[in-house]
Amino acid sequence: MPNPDANVPLGVFDSGVGGLSVLRELRKRLPHEDFLYLGDSGRAPYGGRDLATVLDFAEQCVDLLFAEGCRLVIVACHTVSSVALRHLQQTRAGEGRRILGVTIPAAEQAVTLTKGHIGFLGTRRTVASHTFGTEVAKLDAKVRVTEVAAPLLAPIVEEGWEEGEIAKLAVEQYLAELKGVDTLVLGCTHYPLLRGVIEQVLPPEVQLLDPAPYVSDRLVDWLGRHPGFAGPQPEGRLRVLSSGDTSRFSRNAARFLGTEPPPVEHVAELGGRLVFSPEGSEPVGQFMRQPER
Amino acid sequence: MPNPDANVPLGVFDSGVGGLSVLRELRKRLPHEDFLYLGDSGRAPYGGRDLATVLDFAEQCVDLLFAEGCRLVIVACHTVSSVALRHLQQTRAGEGRRILGVTIPAAEQAVTLTKGHIGFLGTRRTVASHTFGTEVAKLDAKVRVTEVAAPLLAPIVEEGWEEGEIAKLAVEQYLAELKGVDTLVLGCTHYPLLRGVIEQVLPPEVQLLDPAPYVSDRLVDWLGRHPGFAGPQPEGRLRVLSSGDTSRFSRNAARFLGTEPPPVEHVAELGGRLVFSPEGSEPVGQFMRQPER
Repeated sequence: MPNPDANVPLGVFDSGVGGLSVLRELRKRLPHEDFLYLGDSGRAPYGGRDLATVLDFAEQCVDLLFAEGCRLVIVACHTVSSVALRHLQQTRAGEGRRILGVTIPAAEQAVTLTKGHIGFLGTRRTVASHTFGTEVAKLDAKVRVTEVAAPLLAPIVEEGWEEGEIAKLAVEQYLAELKGVDTLVLGCTHYPLLRGVIEQVLPPEVQLLDPAPYVSDRLVDWLGRHPGFAGPQPEGRLRVLSSGDTSRFSRNAARFLGTEPPPVEHVAELGGRLVFSPEGSEPVGQFMRQPER
Repeated sequence: MPNPDANVPLGVFDSGVGGLSVLRELRKRLPHEDFLYLGDSGRAPYGGRDLATVLDFAEQCVDLLFAEGCRLVIVACHTVSSVALRHLQQTRAGEGRRILGVTIPAAEQAVTLTKGHIGFLGTRRTVASHTFGTEVAKLDAKVRVTEVAAPLLAPIVEEGWEEGEIAKLAVEQYLAELKGVDTLVLGCTHYPLLRGVIEQVLPPEVQLLDPAPYVSDRLVDWLGRHPGFAGPQPEGRLRVLSSGDTSRFSRNAARFLGTEPPPVEHVAELGGRLVFSPEGSEPVGQFMRQPER
């Protein structure tokens, strides 16, 4: 029997550090809740992987967050939300376990704001899925959607170059494919860091939409209608887990989270599962596999 | 018993399409040999993955090439050569099976050419391993080596922007960290496509070294000393396998190979192994896992 007084953190997961830009907005709206963030940075980016493998990874991340006491998991990653959310919901969610994504909220808000033509920037995998366009069409079939893959933007942010000339040129190149849109959706958790550069390039009449604040509003609403998925005595705490190099993750995290993260805990892939592991940084030179314990 | 008259292709593997730039040089020097190329693009880039996972992937790739009749596998990928070559050689090579990498040839040639200070550009993982510097030190401890991670360069080439302003600015930024070197080693199979831009930025007195032609010379020499690892009746044929989206791989391949590739065959990850699979392109929308057959 679970302890009814035990704290229930809200789980948030992304393929890497980017989802911390979503967590930042969630914590603004829900400052008293406890959050548990998992960045699967050891296996990021998911974009180039076989779809079956993306599903495996997403399952493992969701399972780990549930095992750590979460009852609700927010899939902050647009790529995972676009291709794997339904699978996760059908195989992992149930009476006391729910999984929410970001694609439908993003589509809802964009449809509310648009005058008729929405532009969407995302990873190659997200755009290829066409899930955002499909969700918009369900809400309003008359709205036009142009989805453009911008595979260089996340690596530019990862490199810390989001304010430079390279970022500006890349944004110009991608936005040139989005002429005529009246609303632009940032369909990747890395892109809010490019807001400054995008605002320089974007015509002033185009509305720029980071879905994270609206995702947060929707979550507040959802939690009000679904008691027991957070609380009962949260203390505004945050735990952060990463499957990659924890020191690199920590260095990167503050830019996304807007504040210093707590010490990052390391989880590693072992026999197809994510497990806690003390070893968060990597050896130098040729690597020989350790015997299985 | 293997058929002694059967053709023995030379196996070449890389995490993605980049190794075709090495294959191009190998085929120039060995135009009559048969080659079998495997690009593990469905799981690329390897750079961000746990080292244990990189080892798993590399093992699977080598096993597949051996299973397809190769007796020699050339690890074209600098990342894999830097961290996993020794493991592969100790666990996969033997009497009739050999595995060669690119790091030691690159170090040999750089030491021959340098006046005392070698610069090396590579992926984050390659540079973190410091394997290139270690190999140079074994050859000549007096030579200075500066290794710089250039994580944005491969994505720029993947995007097809290797001749533009973005490429030039990124190269300038990375080369600024390599002031004072007299020789620059291109330590990633994507970088030869940036040669034009690098030559614009690099001071004229610095020698630019793509290791692939020297790797090819060393291979010709090795094959002369080790009969039976290629031939016996090669016809200059080429097969190309990819674990990712085959149509995208094909579109990208010609830029690296310098000529149109043959139809790309698809292999997929199934139960932790790479197996041939007819499905080379990806479905649209939410993806539900098929029941295991």
